[in-house]
Amino acid sequence: MSPRLSDARVERILDTWPVARLASVAPGGSPHLVPIVFARAAGALWSPVDGKSKSSGALARLRNLEHEPRVALLLDHYADDWTQLWWLRLDATAEITGGNPEAESALRRKYPQYRETALFQHTPTLVRFTPIRLVSWSASDDRGGPE
Amino acid sequence: MSPRLSDARVERILDTWPVARLASVAPGGSPHLVPIVFARAAGALWSPVDGKSKSSGALARLRNLEHEPRVALLLDHYADDWTQLWWLRLDATAEITGGNPEAESALRRKYPQYRETALFQHTPTLVRFTPIRLVSWSASDDRGGPE
Repeated sequence: MSPRLSDARVERILDTWPVARLASVAPGGSPHLVPIVFARAAGALWSPVDGKSKSSGALARLRNLEHEPRVALLLDHYADDWTQLWWLRLDATAEITGGNPEAESALRRKYPQYRETALFQHTPTLVRFTPIRLVSWSASDDRGGPE
Repeated sequence: MSPRLSDARVERILDTWPVARLASVAPGGSPHLVPIVFARAAGALWSPVDGKSKSSGALARLRNLEHEPRVALLLDHYADDWTQLWWLRLDATAEITGGNPEAESALRRKYPQYRETALFQHTPTLVRFTPIRLVSWSASDDRGGPE
């Protein structure tokens, strides 16, 4: 059996890890990839279209999600010490929504940067990721180990 | 115009950044995502099927690449100081190959970890990523700035 992260560690990572990489599929069938910030609330992960400057096409990509809502999110840790590597992949469906008070609170709690950076660029817009499947891998098996 | 990385910085990142996230598309059309190590050689990026323990299905995923060779690779930097954020996305085609002396040398030079970890798990197997398009974004515009 492949080593994986303990359930407790998965929960902690989902609550606190600061960055995820989001893979989506463009209408032409090619994969797309971008780093995102996110917070966990109401059984989902949420990412805002925030005030950080955007590459051209960033908002167009949101429309990809309406065309193909299936996405993958990767939360992972790289280290020169390869015994410390781990990753956690969440297969999810993405939905673009307006503001959500619970999600906005979670984002502001997690990222003090939103005291300086606007949480939304224009109209409040969030992407809600509803988990379908979670797969994890760890170079060192930590099931049953100390948390 | 959106801020992007300078050409010199892109070159340096492609030569030295230790980890990339690889997005591919499964035969059913859903995206897949995994972190990889890689090295640059002969105008391409190369990633080995190495001796690090694998999650179940890791090798099956290679077959996804034969079905859909279009992939995206993300090299990016997260920091609590959001003025330091950057990312670089490489759209590429992936091809599974056997051993390649130039690529293997580049991998061993870049990763001293391969003194301990086997460069190949079984038969020498590399994935070669041939770049199609490179897109970068930087929170701070460094074009023309000091390297």
